[in-house]
Amino acid sequence: MSKQGVTPQSENFSDWYNEIVYRADLAARSPVRGCLIIKPYGYEIWEAIHNSLDRRFKETGHQNAYFPLFIPESYLKREAEHVEGFSPELAVVTVAGGKELEEPLVVRPTSETVIGEAFSEWIQSYRDLPLLINQWANVVRWELRTRPFLRTSEFLWQEGHTAHATHEEAEAETLQMLDVYADFAINEAAIPVIKGLKSNIERFAGALRTYTIEGMMRDTRALQSGTSHNLGQNFAKAFDIKYLDEQNEQQYCWTTSWGMSTRMIGAIIMTHGDDQGLRLPPKVAPYQVVAIPIFRKEEEEAPVMEKLMNIVKDLRAAGIRVHVDDRNQSPGFKFNDWEMRGVPVRLEIGPKDVEKGNAVLVRRDVAGRDAKQFVSQDGIVKTVQDLLDDVQASLLADATAFRDANIHDVSSYDEFRQVIDGGGWARGWWAGSDDNERQIKEDTGATLRCIPLEQPGGTGTCFYSDEVAQSVALFAKAY
Amino acid sequence: MSKQGVTPQSENFSDWYNEIVYRADLAARSPVRGCLIIKPYGYEIWEAIHNSLDRRFKETGHQNAYFPLFIPESYLKREAEHVEGFSPELAVVTVAGGKELEEPLVVRPTSETVIGEAFSEWIQSYRDLPLLINQWANVVRWELRTRPFLRTSEFLWQEGHTAHATHEEAEAETLQMLDVYADFAINEAAIPVIKGLKSNIERFAGALRTYTIEGMMRDTRALQSGTSHNLGQNFAKAFDIKYLDEQNEQQYCWTTSWGMSTRMIGAIIMTHGDDQGLRLPPKVAPYQVVAIPIFRKEEEEAPVMEKLMNIVKDLRAAGIRVHVDDRNQSPGFKFNDWEMRGVPVRLEIGPKDVEKGNAVLVRRDVAGRDAKQFVSQDGIVKTVQDLLDDVQASLLADATAFRDANIHDVSSYDEFRQVIDGGGWARGWWAGSDDNERQIKEDTGATLRCIPLEQPGGTGTCFYSDEVAQSVALFAKAY
Ligand SMILES: [Zn+2]
Ligand SMILES: [Zn+2]
Repeated sequence: MSKQGVTPQSENFSDWYNEIVYRADLAARSPVRGCLIIKPYGYEIWEAIHNSLDRRFKETGHQNAYFPLFIPESYLKREAEHVEGFSPELAVVTVAGGKELEEPLVVRPTSETVIGEAFSEWIQSYRDLPLLINQWANVVRWELRTRPFLRTSEFLWQEGHTAHATHEEAEAETLQMLDVYADFAINEAAIPVIKGLKSNIERFAGALRTYTIEGMMRDTRALQSGTSHNLGQNFAKAFDIKYLDEQNEQQYCWTTSWGMSTRMIGAIIMTHGDDQGLRLPPKVAPYQVVAIPIFRKEEEEAPVMEKLMNIVKDLRAAGIRVHVDDRNQSPGFKFNDWEMRGVPVRLEIGPKDVEKGNAVLVRRDVAGRDAKQFVSQDGIVKTVQDLLDDVQASLLADATAFRDANIHDVSSYDEFRQVIDGGGWARGWWAGSDDNERQIKEDTGATLRCIPLEQPGGTGTCFYSDEVAQSVALFAKAY
Repeated sequence: MSKQGVTPQSENFSDWYNEIVYRADLAARSPVRGCLIIKPYGYEIWEAIHNSLDRRFKETGHQNAYFPLFIPESYLKREAEHVEGFSPELAVVTVAGGKELEEPLVVRPTSETVIGEAFSEWIQSYRDLPLLINQWANVVRWELRTRPFLRTSEFLWQEGHTAHATHEEAEAETLQMLDVYADFAINEAAIPVIKGLKSNIERFAGALRTYTIEGMMRDTRALQSGTSHNLGQNFAKAFDIKYLDEQNEQQYCWTTSWGMSTRMIGAIIMTHGDDQGLRLPPKVAPYQVVAIPIFRKEEEEAPVMEKLMNIVKDLRAAGIRVHVDDRNQSPGFKFNDWEMRGVPVRLEIGPKDVEKGNAVLVRRDVAGRDAKQFVSQDGIVKTVQDLLDDVQASLLADATAFRDANIHDVSSYDEFRQVIDGGGWARGWWAGSDDNERQIKEDTGATLRCIPLEQPGGTGTCFYSDEVAQSVALFAKAY
């Protein structure tokens, strides 16, 4: 058990995860099955994700809009492949305003259909292209087995939807947004995701190509953390999204969609957490620093608090998010509490520190004695800033080392099975069929996570089918 | 007709409003009755509202959280008065995951009930108080007669919910948030709202006291633009929200709630618009400046665009939101288009301006020749900033003058009826009963908008009942 009574990761990762979500006050259970209450400490992580992505979307020329929560049932039937993917998960409004509705309304599981219909009206000519829209919204997919943040019946996400004149432009957009997701994941969430292409079996219903970023969680399972779809002309044909080209001829548009959700909060928890609880990357942490006053005698309180609050004021003026824990609890209790809740840096000030002009800084990412340092109050803003940068970088380095240590190259199915059974990710040359892929999943529980964009080059022999393969693929057990 | 073919306000305000919402590209009709698509130009106004309010909420110590979209039907029945207010407007999910649900789920019309239940679990002791929570969310109230932004079946809003140890603290919070709304409305949206208390009849179902900000639209109708409720202990008792006080005794909490919605976009349109279309206050305008290159000959394009883009770059670096209209259309077409869409300042650069180091600035708030000025390119950033400040202030002054010219003091019911029939707001001493108030509404269509917080002092004779009155009330026809 951890100091806070949380089941250790090493003992039972799944229990650890479920406990930490509630113990760290990220979320609370709700009265509706499969729906979560996101508490402020969890919601602030979502705000950080929202703000980081929204800035990137706007920098790449996208605008936000808002489309209705409800979708007429008939809409979902227009794109046959698409509806198949969603129908068992739909929540349906049949009564509204005290009356049975003539046509039931589906609570959006995604907005492709209603946005497709809107695009068909908004787009007339090549001058209207590209159309680059994003929506921040809640969506509902009724789930039988739910896990907080990872799989809930309602979740928050953003969904980008764009229309283009050519396949090339749509493909460039799809890859650009994949890069945006990867950039956010790596440089803000400190998750060293791998970018790649989904297989036929794993791609989004109705898409031409689905790209993904895959992260390795601390139990070595893969988590799909964001996807970007080149929808080809499938949705444009289903929803009649056409434009007049420069030669005055009608053409179908090429569309894309891409999304990232509150699932990313789960990815952050599971990438960085340890036996003591959360470890939050400074860039997405609600509190980057927790400041704790240390005193025993009553007369020590005033000078300690005064000094502490002066430093806190300076830190905040520099844009650092600081929480002051002045609860009527022992320092030890507070240390354990904030360690469990993953605050990147702890600042302590005691009577001796006031006297000597010192302070204690403790970093969360490092265990044991090395975590603690005594620093001067002079220049402490810079010291803390540098330490936060260091924690951010070290969490990424740590996750990258963990990832790389658990990806193994395989050249035969025997090797593959050993790697998967041992909890690793298997990387090997792949030329298998859809049926081969399904058989592997049945045999081992592993799925083809992606064909990484970064390839060794050349060709090789497929570890499963022995045929000549053009690329390597990554397989793993996944969430 | 305006230059853009929009029905003039003076001819038919309601047609003007409906046309301008779509013509200015703020919104689009959706396939679901009563639901709106908020297009980027409208959504950016909502983002400005969101950001301005969210900053103020955080500065006053509130934290954001997220609660489920669905509420078990039984929850809504706990607070009897509350459910009465909402039941005819509910949208109900009866089927989910391919099955009939055992208990139907209501799509939230507001989250009081689910948040009340959560608060009852989160609050144990006086140390947990005050609890200051806000949520940004979509809500659904099924409406038979809808109008874009003003009354739609789904809308976006924020709902604040707080719990306190005493009635005094709850009342102080209720009034603080009313002040936040008024501050935003006046200083960002340039709407000179009047703060006041709702009557028994008009207050929120289940509230002890409802405060409101009321704005006067350009047709002189009143629009309730934000409300703040002191819920007393009503919800605390219905949802068992209790705390242990310092004497270790169980007490019911005192709770508040307060909300502002996308209706505020309608308020901005109807407060400032004129016959030519929108007039957007710079602080909430998606584009504060539209930059239009002027040239006839092809060889003029390059130098004009170069100079224009240099100025645009400087303006943007100063944080000014600039849109460059480089469409292949005549300047006249663009002038009319952006005038209709309400951009506060237009910047023109032509070949002579390039030569002489000048630029043309045209302000949207002023009509005719006075709108236009020739300025030097030297120091143009400061010139534009000052002009934007001036437009912001002048829109507020204009709306305030319009409001004050249309509020009339009345001392008899005859005078009252004359004022109301003439389209004004009537202000008079008021000591009437609930039945009197209902009778007035039946006679004249006017409702008691509020008892303003700002009072003349002393007592007077009620214009309706002739009884001694402690305060004056404001009556008007309302949206
Ligand atoms: Zn879809
Ligand atoms: Zn309510």
